[in-house]
Amino acid sequence: MMPRIPEERLARYSGMKREFREEGYINLNPIQRGGVLTEEARRVILEFGDGYSTCDWCPPKSPRLDSIERPPIAQFMQDLAEFLGMDVARVVTRCREAMFIAFATLSEPGDSVVVDSLAHYSTYLAAELARLKVREVPHSGYPEFRVDLDAYAQKIEEVRRETGKLPSAVLLTHVDYLYGNLNDAARVGKVCEEYGVPFVLNAAYTAGVMPVDGKSMRVDVLVSSGHKSWAASAPTGILALRGEAAERVLRRSSITGDWSGRQFGLKEYPLLGCTVMGAPLMTLMASFPEVVRRVERWEEEVENARYLVGELERIEGTRQLGVRPKEHTLVHMESEGFFRASQGHRRRGYFLYEEMKERGIVGIQPGLTKHFKLNTYGLGREKVKAVAEAFLDIARKVGLSVS
Amino acid sequence: MMPRIPEERLARYSGMKREFREEGYINLNPIQRGGVLTEEARRVILEFGDGYSTCDWCPPKSPRLDSIERPPIAQFMQDLAEFLGMDVARVVTRCREAMFIAFATLSEPGDSVVVDSLAHYSTYLAAELARLKVREVPHSGYPEFRVDLDAYAQKIEEVRRETGKLPSAVLLTHVDYLYGNLNDAARVGKVCEEYGVPFVLNAAYTAGVMPVDGKSMRVDVLVSSGHKSWAASAPTGILALRGEAAERVLRRSSITGDWSGRQFGLKEYPLLGCTVMGAPLMTLMASFPEVVRRVERWEEEVENARYLVGELERIEGTRQLGVRPKEHTLVHMESEGFFRASQGHRRRGYFLYEEMKERGIVGIQPGLTKHFKLNTYGLGREKVKAVAEAFLDIARKVGLSVS
Repeated sequence: MMPRIPEERLARYSGMKREFREEGYINLNPIQRGGVLTEEARRVILEFGDGYSTCDWCPPKSPRLDSIERPPIAQFMQDLAEFLGMDVARVVTRCREAMFIAFATLSEPGDSVVVDSLAHYSTYLAAELARLKVREVPHSGYPEFRVDLDAYAQKIEEVRRETGKLPSAVLLTHVDYLYGNLNDAARVGKVCEEYGVPFVLNAAYTAGVMPVDGKSMRVDVLVSSGHKSWAASAPTGILALRGEAAERVLRRSSITGDWSGRQFGLKEYPLLGCTVMGAPLMTLMASFPEVVRRVERWEEEVENARYLVGELERIEGTRQLGVRPKEHTLVHMESEGFFRASQGHRRRGYFLYEEMKERGIVGIQPGLTKHFKLNTYGLGREKVKAVAEAFLDIARKVGLSVS
Repeated sequence: MMPRIPEERLARYSGMKREFREEGYINLNPIQRGGVLTEEARRVILEFGDGYSTCDWCPPKSPRLDSIERPPIAQFMQDLAEFLGMDVARVVTRCREAMFIAFATLSEPGDSVVVDSLAHYSTYLAAELARLKVREVPHSGYPEFRVDLDAYAQKIEEVRRETGKLPSAVLLTHVDYLYGNLNDAARVGKVCEEYGVPFVLNAAYTAGVMPVDGKSMRVDVLVSSGHKSWAASAPTGILALRGEAAERVLRRSSITGDWSGRQFGLKEYPLLGCTVMGAPLMTLMASFPEVVRRVERWEEEVENARYLVGELERIEGTRQLGVRPKEHTLVHMESEGFFRASQGHRRRGYFLYEEMKERGIVGIQPGLTKHFKLNTYGLGREKVKAVAEAFLDIARKVGLSVS
């Protein structure tokens, strides 16, 4: 029998290269800055590349990923929880899976969850898969897009009034993906505590890059993304739990085979048992020491973002959207100037991307000029300066005034 | 503020090494043989190690992992489906997640699914998370443990009689993890077609190592494991669909933000949107050409397993469990001989593991002698001979007769 797929077509899977490797470009892609591997992670990704490479020493009496001590996975789960100010931690496949697990275990189908209206799309999908309704907490709109944290209590009340029961969970996106606004999670934590509703904090853009202490913010379930903010390979998600939420979420299996009587009481069924049994988990662990150190340098990172905003706002008709001054490195810029320039440009909206790329800078979405996002995390002041100079240079080239 | 985790503790995450790398040992671990990376996969795992490294060219108008053409992810999804004789394929995070997605989308909470009684534990957990009941198809017990495929129709009838509706899905484990028995999936496919019940085939131990054609077996949902059988890093799962099942499973999101009106109609919500957006997916793609070729050499692989069984059965009181002769490389041995030897041995049950390891062979579970599993996949005849010689040598050393 011949292989079904002809060799000509298979050839496309040989020699696949990534153009935008960290060594070759300054990459401003908002989702990529916190996921650049450390040197140690680059080493272990090869060491543990093969399939179930973490499972050589899976303890026969407690066969579970989080029980493995060689490599130190069990130890890591504890250190990870402690680092986040939480009681228990698990590594799951994505932040969105962590949200789904929390929603699915804290709710019954048909329940409502309250979420901020700038939540990532995957928050809504996690609710949808768990068969829940979402109730959104409004934001202030243009230009600050500030989530109205005071409205959380009101939304909880609304759900209670309309459905006869409290929402099964409340979620806040610590820093949103659109404007990079940092929310005061402790305020929402306090409200949730008062109502006795579990508080889920989506820390995909915060934990791993800045100090995050779940306990002081009264977080019950903290979710984060290894590939977004922990210098780890995709897919890796973090699910960290505090207090009663740990038992409610990490439930042991009780299903029983009707003919065989088989049971799996050791396994945590919302996780489907073991989760990330290979290379991405190892990169997360290998980068962890640097992550623990780097969150202490967060203020420098924010300074770099503010510096870049200041430089970009020297360009005619250009301003930062979201809360000012920046409290995060994810930046959303609005530029009437670049937009006007694009309209007379041979390459239309693509000129900005192309001019940047010629200068060795990528990550601004091709085609965008009026609104574009970028992230300065981990670049260091020198590269951020190079980015600023590139923007100013392009602005002058297309005839915009620079103050 | 000081980092929460002291440097002494962080030191354990530096220099993590894998003892049982493929270069150093012959590894018989049943779950690991099909997941050893190809050379090309080893190259791309570093190339695409950073976080969201596959997302550089995510198309702004169709932002979805399976729409990305650079690297050729969109093309791969099509080739993958074609290779499996299915219509549509997606890469998800694990085979178990693929089972959960199928169960959750094909069922309503409270429904029943019919599964074989040798199904992997994760099958039961996937049903539990989807809030389903399982009804098991019996097996024949010792020593063949043959699943009674004729009982599928009867179990479907039972569910209909007792619940008033058909099971929402039927699952068969193509090759089980305990005895490595290969089931005639086409027989079950025919029954499912007659009843109009979706047929889910768990091909975690088959697709990627042996030829598997979903169409000829009338499979509606084929699930598999990249890290188990496709020379890929964990975590990677395959979800391949045929006919109507594709629409039922890969549903687009319809949830709407009550305040914002936000919608995400492009996203497949059972997948939670994008899935494996990094290195493991790239290893799966990089190994795909070799996987397409290697399934054609399956008969040689089975011959190697049969050869080893023949050699091991020369040892006093030792025999293969499961269906004979072997039709798969996963082998379950029973050895009264080794067990008896262990009882008088200073190291008790550990002697077998330790003697093997001294000979450069690992993967037999430490402590086991009476029943142990191994997998010869991909070793080649020379290494399989070395394994056989090691077993015979140890048998003689502990005073067992070898015919």
